[in-house]
Amino acid sequence: MFKEAQAKVDEWVQGYKKPYFEPLSQFARLAEEVGEVGRILNHKYGDKVKKDGEEPDELGAELADILFAVVCSANSHNLDLDIEFEKIIQKSKTRDVNRFDKK
Amino acid sequence: MFKEAQAKVDEWVQGYKKPYFEPLSQFARLAEEVGEVGRILNHKYGDKVKKDGEEPDELGAELADILFAVVCSANSHNLDLDIEFEKIIQKSKTRDVNRFDKK
Amino acid sequence: MFKEAQAKVDEWVQGYKKPYFEPLSQFARLAEEVGEVGRILNHKYGDKVKKDGEEPDELGAELADILFAVVCSANSHNLDLDIEFEKIIQKSKTRDVNRFDKK
Amino acid sequence: MFKEAQAKVDEWVQGYKKPYFEPLSQFARLAEEVGEVGRILNHKYGDKVKKDGEEPDELGAELADILFAVVCSANSHNLDLDIEFEKIIQKSKTRDVNRFDKK
Repeated sequence: MFKEAQAKVDEWVQGYKKPYFEPLSQFARLAEEVGEVGRILNHKYGDKVKKDGEEPDELGAELADILFAVVCSANSHNLDLDIEFEKIIQKSKTRDVNRFDKK
Repeated sequence: MFKEAQAKVDEWVQGYKKPYFEPLSQFARLAEEVGEVGRILNHKYGDKVKKDGEEPDELGAELADILFAVVCSANSHNLDLDIEFEKIIQKSKTRDVNRFDKK
Repeated sequence: MFKEAQAKVDEWVQGYKKPYFEPLSQFARLAEEVGEVGRILNHKYGDKVKKDGEEPDELGAELADILFAVVCSANSHNLDLDIEFEKIIQKSKTRDVNRFDKK
Repeated sequence: MFKEAQAKVDEWVQGYKKPYFEPLSQFARLAEEVGEVGRILNHKYGDKVKKDGEEPDELGAELADILFAVVCSANSHNLDLDIEFEKIIQKSKTRDVNRFDKK
């Protein structure tokens, strides 16, 4: 699943002198992208009214920016997101088995 | 301290039909403002390079936007930020007494 | 308004060898506190169900943690939050004059 | 890449009465998970000292939680993350071609 995205990003950024930002700099970028998703969802579902001239919302692009930031953070720490994601799914299935109402 | 800011904001927004956003909409706005602080600090201290034409950074304005969002959230929940802030200070002084190195 | 909070925090942290975190470290802390507000509001207003044994929610305390983080960031950058907040209020009153419905 | 993760999550949550949170509730959860990554990175790279008894840091698990939140948001909006991610990569390669130093 995520392996291919991790490899694709790594292959690209290795062409740069400093392939990955420092960890806390990566984090600030992640938080920035998350904030942009907040802005978009607030326009769609919340009480925020767009300012005149604000660009059209692109939720997909902003979610992809978050994915990119997560992939960079994982690559910097040699983490395998497929393994980590699988663990989360398994843990959620077990922990939340009675937490939400089933059909 | 914060009482005056809370009163000033409330006096102003009471002129609107819907003075305060819904709570999760307020939160999305808060997260958006925090993301903007992340962007600015990343330009100053991190590895992010500004895009051509990006506006000058105004950390003070973005921090004030966060304060505004916090004040709105507190006002919506009838919270007294002076009391809450005082509690945090007292708790930190007690809890962190040996957590960081003193001069 | 905020001057007193800024002075109170500064007076306290000056007793430590490193009074303020590095800027991106401060930011990570700010984002952490914001995330905790998200968790609390999600319990109250969203679809998230509390896990068994999760501590009672204290929105006021978490908002105060955000204020503390903002005050630290402002102090580190010699920003006067009273001035910045006043500018935001004035700008919002002007910019948003027709953006939301008046009573 | 992400298609499989999107399908896996959807297959699982469709067993629940309300498969996906409301959008702003999803967002609050996303921001909460991002805050936890901030906490962990701050322990590793920032000035934050762990409190006694705090659980061991699991960056991989927290990053996977973010992926999960992003996948849910994309699924709720019928977005194909493979397409969106590919667009971001292509856009970044074009836009940033001279923004960072090459090797």
